[in-house]
Amino acid sequence: MTDIDPVTIWTLDWVPDGPRGFVRDIRLRWACEEASIPYRIANVPFEGRETNHLERQPFGQVPMLEDGALRLFESGAGLIHLGSKSDILMPADERGRAETIQWIFAGLNTLEMVTMPWVVLQWSKEDVPAITAWLDNRLTQMEAVLGDREWLVGGRFTLADLVIADVLRVDLIRKHGDRPASEAYVARITDRPAFRKAYADQMTHFEKADETRKENDDG
Amino acid sequence: MTDIDPVTIWTLDWVPDGPRGFVRDIRLRWACEEASIPYRIANVPFEGRETNHLERQPFGQVPMLEDGALRLFESGAGLIHLGSKSDILMPADERGRAETIQWIFAGLNTLEMVTMPWVVLQWSKEDVPAITAWLDNRLTQMEAVLGDREWLVGGRFTLADLVIADVLRVDLIRKHGDRPASEAYVARITDRPAFRKAYADQMTHFEKADETRKENDDG
Repeated sequence: MTDIDPVTIWTLDWVPDGPRGFVRDIRLRWACEEASIPYRIANVPFEGRETNHLERQPFGQVPMLEDGALRLFESGAGLIHLGSKSDILMPADERGRAETIQWIFAGLNTLEMVTMPWVVLQWSKEDVPAITAWLDNRLTQMEAVLGDREWLVGGRFTLADLVIADVLRVDLIRKHGDRPASEAYVARITDRPAFRKAYADQMTHFEKADETRKENDDG
Repeated sequence: MTDIDPVTIWTLDWVPDGPRGFVRDIRLRWACEEASIPYRIANVPFEGRETNHLERQPFGQVPMLEDGALRLFESGAGLIHLGSKSDILMPADERGRAETIQWIFAGLNTLEMVTMPWVVLQWSKEDVPAITAWLDNRLTQMEAVLGDREWLVGGRFTLADLVIADVLRVDLIRKHGDRPASEAYVARITDRPAFRKAYADQMTHFEKADETRKENDDG
């Protein structure tokens, strides 16, 4: 029994192997695990996912976060909402809060604006020099930041580290180039028990879906 | 005389014609104009811009926002900070605030993650079908949202509209495809006096820099 109502994290009921461990509900699971915020998981069907929940998410993506009457999409917005519930995630003082939000945008705009398109192009085996040069520049700049400090904000773990590590931990990005400070940072942040729990739970969620699918096929 | 200390918006001291009207200090100028927040402009030299202010902005970008001892980079973070100073920009209630932040991320992550790379590829005359298909999907989804409502949050102008309109108003994006609701929305939002003032001021800022450069060349 808890006196805090759980939040609900919406994800997909199944995905193929490729994105497992990277579906963005993991960001919200991880934050809840860090801050001991109770949560439950709800599902959107994978089949028809681009159109079957447009009334909740106009781009057909996941995750969504529900907290009482509040329904939010965009993982960045969900994280800031969870951060407002716990200063484990986001310092309560103005500066710490603003700097945490700054690094969330650095991850989701400045970095992911090039890491994601670059990864999409790698999947389709397209080499686009302008995008690769842009990626290399951003990763080198981030390497310089991470060579300088252990944490991004306030000398301790915050949502800033959660987001930057989540953007940098993508396999293709880790394998691209040699950036020891970034690699050590990603290894250290993703070794946190809250991340490992969130990751394992997401993997189990999709493995159970495999079993259900198999039973249905057999049945 | 005012009893509110002005914030400082950092931009570049000069840029070529191409980006004029689109340098991202305009987002912060525009928000300040909407909310009557006093501000002054400070400059980073264009020459050497990728490395001459790394101690303030680790990616060598502009804008930065200064408010007392607070120094922030990332236009999204600057906007949320300004929004916390004025409910003209961001509703004070939890739902209005969270939904405004949600749409800021929709603009700067979901949309700009493809609009910016697509524009960069257009500049370098590269046609990458995977990126164009992704762009078309996102713009079509946004068109459906804007066909349904006048404002994104709370039935009135917020930072959500400022960001989404700023992402969609890029010339190459406006000219790509036919999306009447998006076009009407961009035309309406960018006709706001606060946007027109911010735009004119940014243009004047760079025109004055042309004159100074010319004087220096002549001198």
